Amino acid sequence: MTELDRINQTIEDESGPLHAALSDLGRRALYPPDIPVQAAQARGKRYNATIGQITDGAGTAIALPAIESVLQLADEDLNRALLYSPVEGLRDVRELWRTRQRSGPDRAGPSSLPLVTAGLTHGVSIVADLFAGEATPVAVPAPFWGNYRQAFGLRRGARIVTAPAYRDGAYNPLALEEALADSPEGVPAVAIVNIPSNPGGYSPNPDERLRLRESLVSIADRRPLVVVCDDAYAGLVYQDGIPSRSPFWELIGLHQNLIPFKVDGATKELNFFGGRVGFLTLPFPPESPLTAALESKIKGLVRATVGSPVAATQMVVLQALRNGDLEGQVAAVRETLGRRYRGLKSALSGVDRDLLDPLPFNSGCFALAEIPERHGLDSNDVRRHLLQNHDTGIVSLRPNYLRLAFCSVKERDIPELVSRVQNGLAELVGRS
Amino acid sequence: MTELDRINQTIEDESGPLHAALSDLGRRALYPPDIPVQAAQARGKRYNATIGQITDGAGTAIALPAIESVLQLADEDLNRALLYSPVEGLRDVRELWRTRQRSGPDRAGPSSLPLVTAGLTHGVSIVADLFAGEATPVAVPAPFWGNYRQAFGLRRGARIVTAPAYRDGAYNPLALEEALADSPEGVPAVAIVNIPSNPGGYSPNPDERLRLRESLVSIADRRPLVVVCDDAYAGLVYQDGIPSRSPFWELIGLHQNLIPFKVDGATKELNFFGGRVGFLTLPFPPESPLTAALESKIKGLVRATVGSPVAATQMVVLQALRNGDLEGQVAAVRETLGRRYRGLKSALSGVDRDLLDPLPFNSGCFALAEIPERHGLDSNDVRRHLLQNHDTGIVSLRPNYLRLAFCSVKERDIPELVSRVQNGLAELVGRS
Repeated sequence: MTELDRINQTIEDESGPLHAALSDLGRRALYPPDIPVQAAQARGKRYNATIGQITDGAGTAIALPAIESVLQLADEDLNRALLYSPVEGLRDVRELWRTRQRSGPDRAGPSSLPLVTAGLTHGVSIVADLFAGEATPVAVPAPFWGNYRQAFGLRRGARIVTAPAYRDGAYNPLALEEALADSPEGVPAVAIVNIPSNPGGYSPNPDERLRLRESLVSIADRRPLVVVCDDAYAGLVYQDGIPSRSPFWELIGLHQNLIPFKVDGATKELNFFGGRVGFLTLPFPPESPLTAALESKIKGLVRATVGSPVAATQMVVLQALRNGDLEGQVAAVRETLGRRYRGLKSALSGVDRDLLDPLPFNSGCFALAEIPERHGLDSNDVRRHLLQNHDTGIVSLRPNYLRLAFCSVKERDIPELVSRVQNGLAELVGRS
Repeated sequence: MTELDRINQTIEDESGPLHAALSDLGRRALYPPDIPVQAAQARGKRYNATIGQITDGAGTAIALPAIESVLQLADEDLNRALLYSPVEGLRDVRELWRTRQRSGPDRAGPSSLPLVTAGLTHGVSIVADLFAGEATPVAVPAPFWGNYRQAFGLRRGARIVTAPAYRDGAYNPLALEEALADSPEGVPAVAIVNIPSNPGGYSPNPDERLRLRESLVSIADRRPLVVVCDDAYAGLVYQDGIPSRSPFWELIGLHQNLIPFKVDGATKELNFFGGRVGFLTLPFPPESPLTAALESKIKGLVRATVGSPVAATQMVVLQALRNGDLEGQVAAVRETLGRRYRGLKSALSGVDRDLLDPLPFNSGCFALAEIPERHGLDSNDVRRHLLQNHDTGIVSLRPNYLRLAFCSVKERDIPELVSRVQNGLAELVGRS
């Protein structure tokens, strides 16, 4: 029995649905027992000629002064920043991130040590490699962020099934189930759950969360279901009574056919967009056979796409995670965003609904608004009009959505921003 | 005509062989006109609500003190380190890297601005996405670094064709041609040219380079041929008379069927292993239609795998590239490695050839040696024996190779390292 056979057998023994959900690539994937494994075995030996990194001969990087002067790190940390990260990520970064993930209430279910990825998209793309093949149905709440189409559709040839997230101007917690209703029973599927969402900025209330959860269970009654919890905007909730914990925690162990994966990272949670430190977390205990088997596959895929995650920015994140003041600093950013959120909420409450219909939003970085269909306007034309005639940039989404990113607009600019969008629309529908 | 059709048509018009060599995924790939494009169009507008990054509302990152204190960068540079990089990389990093790439003699051919990748493996993996599909023949000099198998075989289902790089203890410049001799005429192929190589540490002499080049032309006489110039160890040549420039420069424009890509980066060239800053360079002028078309496809694939390259470590690399002393610092590292190289050369010249037969090496980070087949020893058993009984770690490669990484061993330790390897082998063949 080969190592690959052994790992696939472990997955099948421990979770038939997880095994059934693997793509062809997911089935082939394995962390190869090559140089990193041999280097790990040689660690601490008196003579160690395994390592393909330029060191002083005792494991310390030979830092170019031109490089090291930029990184304010103590010697040992600097060394780790300059050398390769383990393929699964630096151990203490993974441990501290896990502690932070599990620090809220209602987070009792099993979860692995997170594997470090090169940003959140990389985590999504690894799940796509593992579980999406030619024509795998992938249900995505719409309107959606284009990277899901890139990771699942472009790269893996999967079938993107759009799940309209709003119905009659309200959030629809049953959208994913409705979208997958036509997929034949027994065929594994993938569903994206992104709360708070991009571009919607919406997090469901307790009742909607319950219905979403029941709805995912209904899908799982009929087929193996991999749920990608894209928690990019975790924690950014501005309205009382709206839960801010990730749905991941309530999906763990809920149904044998339902396998949630958590994708999160420092990008938005620590305002470190340029660092590309993401995490991929499994719904199994750290030392379990399923975790070991999936880790091997994930590490094989990381080796095959980027070699290893970024060590230097993991070390930056590690300093932050060790900093006793970190949560206070994160809260201060959330408060800034909360003020902008309330400003935008207020400004949008005054717009002419006949021109622009805001969808509910309470979290994240964005608000989404619909241009009433009866005007026959293409949202991209609206965007261009605002750029050209109002010195104003917003994002258009087909067919008739506009996205306003309040995360990158000053609180005091928000009323004028909304006013310009409204004026631009009025001109286009011939009211000015 | 869609944007994708237009781009594919451009490639076909400009280079039929390049178009023929594209994989199905390569044909589908396109940089989508979504949020990054819209954000770019809105740059500089008075009201800009396009950007999904948390800023002060005027384009400046809201840095967490716990993060920014680690990065010694002036305000504007710090800002760029914290925010997303453009998908193709930061403009000035690309420009300065290109200047550095082209600074030697004999580098007159056209080359694009390099696109930034998340390390060199990512560059290799993008070429695999573009050009390797199910059963595409990919010729790789053997023995080889496992990542080629991961990127081309595991992920893309391509057929790895091993090309024995050594024959009778000498480098064989015709290996790639011989390996592809059985592949049917007209079927596109990929070939890896890694000089200096991992694990071989060999760079061909001028005569061998000429024969290698002629041999690649012979392959291209029969089929479209994509050549991946893996220049990870660029510049690390320790023997007089051995050219240190990349073969990329002499392959540009050599034959219409022969399309070289250059993969290089800061990993080994600037000793920044943990930074994951790699580059992928095309053999076409910066503003040419072919460059624009391929850039769109590459950016689509970067979006689909990692979202964007690492901004923070690009900014570290940028400081280094701006530093007038950089080349002196790089030369100092090369001198250190050169001393270790000469020490290893000398120590290996004294070993019993009946136990260990060193292959020629003159560059890079490694030496490779063969255990004579007649002993019937498995190199992995030799490795384990050395770990367990000699406190010594080396890398084994099947079937009978040992790799010694002199890049991570002190000069003064090298004689004892070689002595222990020899003693271990003597024990295993029953001579001690």
